[in-house]
Amino acid sequence: MNYAFSDKIATLRPSAIREIFKVLENPEVISFAGGNPDPATFPSKEMAEIAARLFRTNSPAALQYGITEGYSQLRELTQRRIKEKYKIGTSNDMLIITSGGQQAIELLTKVLVNEGDAVLCEDPSFIGALNAFRSYNAKLVGVRSDDGGMDMGSLEEKLKTTKNVKFIYVIPTFQNPSGRTLSIGRRKELLRLASKYGVMILEDNPYFELRYSGEYVPPVKSLDTEGLVVYAGSYSKILSPGMRIGFAVAPKPVAEKMVVAKQVADVHTNQFFSMLVAEYLKTCDIDAHITDVCGLYRKKRDLMLSELSKRFDGRVTFTRPEGGIFVWCSLPEGCDGVDLCRRFSDKKVAAVPGSTFMVDEKAPCPAVRLNFSMPSSDQIVKGAELMGEALDEYLRHTL
Amino acid sequence: MNYAFSDKIATLRPSAIREIFKVLENPEVISFAGGNPDPATFPSKEMAEIAARLFRTNSPAALQYGITEGYSQLRELTQRRIKEKYKIGTSNDMLIITSGGQQAIELLTKVLVNEGDAVLCEDPSFIGALNAFRSYNAKLVGVRSDDGGMDMGSLEEKLKTTKNVKFIYVIPTFQNPSGRTLSIGRRKELLRLASKYGVMILEDNPYFELRYSGEYVPPVKSLDTEGLVVYAGSYSKILSPGMRIGFAVAPKPVAEKMVVAKQVADVHTNQFFSMLVAEYLKTCDIDAHITDVCGLYRKKRDLMLSELSKRFDGRVTFTRPEGGIFVWCSLPEGCDGVDLCRRFSDKKVAAVPGSTFMVDEKAPCPAVRLNFSMPSSDQIVKGAELMGEALDEYLRHTL
Repeated sequence: MNYAFSDKIATLRPSAIREIFKVLENPEVISFAGGNPDPATFPSKEMAEIAARLFRTNSPAALQYGITEGYSQLRELTQRRIKEKYKIGTSNDMLIITSGGQQAIELLTKVLVNEGDAVLCEDPSFIGALNAFRSYNAKLVGVRSDDGGMDMGSLEEKLKTTKNVKFIYVIPTFQNPSGRTLSIGRRKELLRLASKYGVMILEDNPYFELRYSGEYVPPVKSLDTEGLVVYAGSYSKILSPGMRIGFAVAPKPVAEKMVVAKQVADVHTNQFFSMLVAEYLKTCDIDAHITDVCGLYRKKRDLMLSELSKRFDGRVTFTRPEGGIFVWCSLPEGCDGVDLCRRFSDKKVAAVPGSTFMVDEKAPCPAVRLNFSMPSSDQIVKGAELMGEALDEYLRHTL
Repeated sequence: MNYAFSDKIATLRPSAIREIFKVLENPEVISFAGGNPDPATFPSKEMAEIAARLFRTNSPAALQYGITEGYSQLRELTQRRIKEKYKIGTSNDMLIITSGGQQAIELLTKVLVNEGDAVLCEDPSFIGALNAFRSYNAKLVGVRSDDGGMDMGSLEEKLKTTKNVKFIYVIPTFQNPSGRTLSIGRRKELLRLASKYGVMILEDNPYFELRYSGEYVPPVKSLDTEGLVVYAGSYSKILSPGMRIGFAVAPKPVAEKMVVAKQVADVHTNQFFSMLVAEYLKTCDIDAHITDVCGLYRKKRDLMLSELSKRFDGRVTFTRPEGGIFVWCSLPEGCDGVDLCRRFSDKKVAAVPGSTFMVDEKAPCPAVRLNFSMPSSDQIVKGAELMGEALDEYLRHTL
């Protein structure tokens, strides 16, 4: 049998990150490559107690089919929390539970994008989202970013010159991979431009509650008065990613179409964990938990930045994120992230080349993404030392 | 904001079953409408023990990100079981874990189907699959079925006259909605025709282990020597549907593309329950459990068929399934399933009109689907009585 694939999938490749993950099977490797939370942040004790209680008191419902929109208590508790705390969502919106934030991205793409339609995105941006857009044959158009996030001049130019733009994809806070945050002024400008050109915004915001310093910047969705923004949220980075519980807040007509798409995708999200998270929100203090998580990650970030300063010694510059889990390193001109990551691999250190996150993955890219949530303090110290050595050798051979 | 949806999603509506489910919010309603397993079949005690053990010994892994292909132990244990017991899968195949059997259907459609390509299917067939095909703008072509399942003469005629057929979708055993089983002779003919016309087969087989009488018929996949069949399996009907754990067995090149599509869909399936099912397979006797489930459902089926015989009294004929969870009722000519289901609703009984499951949903269809796994024995007896009364009134007014 000769297998012929659909046009939208035929050229899509597994992400380069997957390949790097193979290196990680070696337990000696120090990894800055993933995007995993530190397991120490999982509230396992509370979750174990809630799970035992669910099995004892409500297992017929927790193990049975649920409804596609999601477990109603989880929807209500999530909606109330993000509305009261962050002003996310209006009475014209509807919140649905998704199988991770990733599913919110995929469903929105499916309901909005015809093959050949354009999606504008930061360049670099999150590979999982870029591949979701590619998997529907969307045309990706990268918008330049700097330390203040997506550049609004570049965005307007792309809006003017690109046909059939369906939405602007943005990770405004502690962006993956750059760690950057879109300034409040630019958030307002982003909304103005979306309104002016009649395109939607997909705000992907899984990291924003992981702030370790600096000032809170309100989500784009909280500033939206016209129903322009679809918001993708997640419990992955604040409770546990393995359970695959995320959510989308979208204008009702959009959310309803996303429900139709979700029904054929996986019927509904894992019911047991939907009920477990609802119970967690009812009986535990998630804000206090997030404060603890931030305390742990703040130390890791501070250590990461000071060790990188010491070992990179100005030869490589890097972002100083106020939150999230990533640092973006910029190499001198003429260097390539892929080559440097190979040098890292030789020293049993894993990192992800910047090109992975670019709209044009094949162009050389003098950048590398480093994660600091997963490695231990010892690994950060030792890993930075090894990366410094690898950098020495690389620069000696390259420049 | 004026929301414009993609062509493939714009006309897709939530399934009629969803609307019927609203009636079910009334606790007095006796429902034959759903497809839910009886919660008494969930092995809650064993699952609770395994969950407690997982939290105690392995929570960092069970709550962390997993790999897209699925938890390796669950893949291996599932593969070994279905290979040894049912000869499903060869060394050219790969098994991946999916978020329910539904996701296997959706992923295969995404990787194979361009808009406008054709999918051949039984008519009637499972609405969740039909809507998955519709959600990629596939052209659905219905193939006539009778008591032996899909008619092979009709299939060959459609294969001859339809352009760009990508696959044949079939639920060969205890079909949803008809309860029918494809005979062994037709299974072989199905494979011969697929090979002759160079199209794949999607075998959706969630019910086949729920056999209460008659003789085992081997899965189509077990007869496939040419890599024609993608097999969708599920733990929903034998363990629990709420956890959303299914699997696909596909020729490696196809499975690899499905993994790429799954990565952008939901990254991976719930990790905790993937580990829980693996532990269940290792430490419990799933075959003995399935024997118990069959014992319970056999009684319900027998009661259902005898009560329907009594109350429908030859005015409505119905299938006598050897397994599964559905009975398909055929009304006299000139009757319509939608009208009869309305009469049922008036008596607080829920059932699904046959048209729901047809390729052409809008054509009148003199049929109704009844589920017997979920209602209690008392509900089956009382519900059949009420349906008999409703039928009396309907026939009196219609014929």
